[in-house]
Amino acid sequence: MNGAESLLKTAVAAGVEVCFANPGTTEMPLVAAFDAVPGVRAVLGLFEGVCTGAADGYGRMAGRPALTLLHLGPGFANGIANLHNARRARTPIVNLIGDQATWHLAADAPLTSDIVSLAGPVSGWVRTNRSAEELAADAADAIAAAASGQVATLIVPHDNQAGPAGGVTAPRPAASPPAAGEETIRRVAESLKRDQPAVLFMGGRALGERGLRAAARVAAVSGCALVCETFPARLERGAGLPAISRLPYFPEQGMAALSKFQTIILAGTRAPVAFFGYEGMPGSLISRDQNVEALASPEEDVPATLEALADALGAGADAGEVSPATRPQRPQGALSLENLAAAIAYVQPEGAIIMDEGNTSSMAYFPMSAGAPPHSYLTLTGGAIGQGMPCATGAAIACPDRKVINLQADGSAMYTLQSLWTQAREGLDVTTLICANNSYRILGIELMRSGVKEAGPQARGLIGLAPPRLDWVQMSKGMGVPAVRVETAESLVEELERAIANSGPHLIEIVL
Amino acid sequence: MNGAESLLKTAVAAGVEVCFANPGTTEMPLVAAFDAVPGVRAVLGLFEGVCTGAADGYGRMAGRPALTLLHLGPGFANGIANLHNARRARTPIVNLIGDQATWHLAADAPLTSDIVSLAGPVSGWVRTNRSAEELAADAADAIAAAASGQVATLIVPHDNQAGPAGGVTAPRPAASPPAAGEETIRRVAESLKRDQPAVLFMGGRALGERGLRAAARVAAVSGCALVCETFPARLERGAGLPAISRLPYFPEQGMAALSKFQTIILAGTRAPVAFFGYEGMPGSLISRDQNVEALASPEEDVPATLEALADALGAGADAGEVSPATRPQRPQGALSLENLAAAIAYVQPEGAIIMDEGNTSSMAYFPMSAGAPPHSYLTLTGGAIGQGMPCATGAAIACPDRKVINLQADGSAMYTLQSLWTQAREGLDVTTLICANNSYRILGIELMRSGVKEAGPQARGLIGLAPPRLDWVQMSKGMGVPAVRVETAESLVEELERAIANSGPHLIEIVL
Repeated sequence: MNGAESLLKTAVAAGVEVCFANPGTTEMPLVAAFDAVPGVRAVLGLFEGVCTGAADGYGRMAGRPALTLLHLGPGFANGIANLHNARRARTPIVNLIGDQATWHLAADAPLTSDIVSLAGPVSGWVRTNRSAEELAADAADAIAAAASGQVATLIVPHDNQAGPAGGVTAPRPAASPPAAGEETIRRVAESLKRDQPAVLFMGGRALGERGLRAAARVAAVSGCALVCETFPARLERGAGLPAISRLPYFPEQGMAALSKFQTIILAGTRAPVAFFGYEGMPGSLISRDQNVEALASPEEDVPATLEALADALGAGADAGEVSPATRPQRPQGALSLENLAAAIAYVQPEGAIIMDEGNTSSMAYFPMSAGAPPHSYLTLTGGAIGQGMPCATGAAIACPDRKVINLQADGSAMYTLQSLWTQAREGLDVTTLICANNSYRILGIELMRSGVKEAGPQARGLIGLAPPRLDWVQMSKGMGVPAVRVETAESLVEELERAIANSGPHLIEIVL
Repeated sequence: MNGAESLLKTAVAAGVEVCFANPGTTEMPLVAAFDAVPGVRAVLGLFEGVCTGAADGYGRMAGRPALTLLHLGPGFANGIANLHNARRARTPIVNLIGDQATWHLAADAPLTSDIVSLAGPVSGWVRTNRSAEELAADAADAIAAAASGQVATLIVPHDNQAGPAGGVTAPRPAASPPAAGEETIRRVAESLKRDQPAVLFMGGRALGERGLRAAARVAAVSGCALVCETFPARLERGAGLPAISRLPYFPEQGMAALSKFQTIILAGTRAPVAFFGYEGMPGSLISRDQNVEALASPEEDVPATLEALADALGAGADAGEVSPATRPQRPQGALSLENLAAAIAYVQPEGAIIMDEGNTSSMAYFPMSAGAPPHSYLTLTGGAIGQGMPCATGAAIACPDRKVINLQADGSAMYTLQSLWTQAREGLDVTTLICANNSYRILGIELMRSGVKEAGPQARGLIGLAPPRLDWVQMSKGMGVPAVRVETAESLVEELERAIANSGPHLIEIVL
């Protein structure tokens, strides 16, 4: 057994099932080990941003880490942007990065670079393996570190993958996150009785079904509102689940949404800040004369904490409102952002996974789908565009029995369009809806916000994606994913229904 | 005048003409400044790896830096792989990275990350701007740093772009690199007279016409051989220029090529090392009983040093052999690597820029084209694949009157295929030849070299790019570049002739 095999056996023992990979020469012993050690499915991405974004989607849906396998510093670097999003989502991921053989590192061969410096900004845990004997233990440590909601990065020199291994390491016992202490719960309960109006501002682990049901009990008994962070990693929602509103994106709107509350109680997230700092506007979305109560940090057991809070407030076990089952009517006529949203909400099946990187094109979808059948809702957590295509890919691998709908802005889709090829190769049940407005629309808005009344030709050239107009049907077919273009609400609904009735990947270009 | 405008005016004063950009909200004042300050052409790339790779190609051909404009850490990260190649090529590039407003950095908003840590591994110079007043001076310093053959990275907080500027900074005087000292030249001249057989091992600045002609004079008088590094950033070659052979890629072949020499004289490059460390094989390609003489480092004035060496040896002013004008015959029949190479060498016009990221598919091209009309030859310097598509794009912007032919492996092309869109938008005269072997062929070779006799199904899945087969014609048309597929040598030559006769971008998918 070589180091690579001991690493993979250790991963299998810890429950790892998938590796999103784009390897090179320095990863060859690991490539060979996928066949020698059964249990880890190797999924090729034709660009590393596909691999890391897929690992993010997989981890959000599976609740346990996938591996990535990446080629030295430059290969890893191509995956950084989506690891940035994964870090903000607190997704468990284990990156394996091959490096030059230990004895060849000092030669500074062309592909050599400082991988630790690249890995640090997106990794909660980084280690360079020192020997083949230690590879299994390093892998077990990396998987345990990831399991707590981190990106863990293990750099594996080529020779250590090939060298004689020390054995397999048993899984590290998972550290269960603690619930908030009794004193905190008592303090927050007192505040809820006293300092109304109040809002539970929720994120991270609070947004699963258990956390939401507990929060709804708290709301029922205290009268507080429920608001979630602007970009949740994964929110369970739909008919029969507690309703929660979402903090708006622009800071003035976010502040307005929160301004009516005397008290903001943080559950599984930090106090909200502006996505960007605008001159003359504060960076915090909470003013100094509002109370902020920290109930549970992202690292704590937020659902258990919310349940304890509901109990402390004397909430009934089944208290709390849920969203009634409602769907918009079958939309008709010209395409608009409203009937794009209505089409999805009208069609989406129970258990759908909605990946929303629609940016300015998907704003109508969230309210429109509140009463759709229960579904998981994933968003762009870190702002690094190009996340929807691979995240949907990984989610489909984690949940092969669920339908994935990727509501996708065109400019962002271009960042990681190679994801379509992986969807075709693996036969994944992903329907990609390209919102083709041929523009980085958000940048046009931001340019106006920055005080520019009318963009000049160079600025317009940096914001517009046409000419030439991207033809998503041709690009998609070129990667093996059947595709159509729609220009009316009727044809959108028909094509969506067809895609949902037939498994496998589909792409629908929506001309906006 | 705001900070962004002072920065751009300073860049224009220093001779900067192009910025390859994919901006976001934190770069809006710079976006607006492109219209307020004339002189810098903003070129949009639909992915940052396109921008940095294009800046590399531009810098190699123009000999002066382009700007890139990138959005915070994640946007910059998407450009790292091609900056890695640029660093190895010693290409002058100035990266401008927008960051959060200084007062908003501590809020750790979603897109915030440690940009300095990401930038360090690929930048010879990194600075975070501290005020709007200092932006012009920082830009002048960055441009001067880049001009010496470095990647210079300037991080520009959002508020400092918008704040009142301190004025424009005049260009820093360019530091001319020194030639090697007389003692070194005397020592090397003595060695050449004494320790034959010898080879001038050349790279970097040695590979322009002036350096090559001087080296040919040295060879004529001393009998030494001329060999260049495996992956030159830019080599001038063809009929009427001195011939130089290229060090083979695999280390055993590289060692064999050098083993016949008693002395290896380094001119503009370091002593050659293996691209990867293989077990049982040394990392250095030079053995202990060979002499290594350092004539000129990559940082020195290598052409002047070579001329001084030729003079010291008493070489005639016009001495030195040059390649005779020869072309292969017009190839016929089924496609093979040989007649792919022959087709290009048969067709390529004088002054062509040949970007070669053909990897295993282009090995026959270099010897086949030795007698083609004079041309510039660019290669993948740092091993980070995905460089050919954008590098060809940038080269075409630097040299609008020259024909660019990008000899491009399919797996590598998928990394930065978005380059095609920029070629279409800008109407660039680039002909992309996709070598469609549907495989990471090099990895199949490397897997065998690592001792695996027969790849298992998972390894095969990580090496093969089909199924599904990529359809480059559809993908290219989807981005606005006309494309055809060829399956015979005759049709390849015909399509190449057509592409060369008609300006603008073309893509030819070559079924191998």
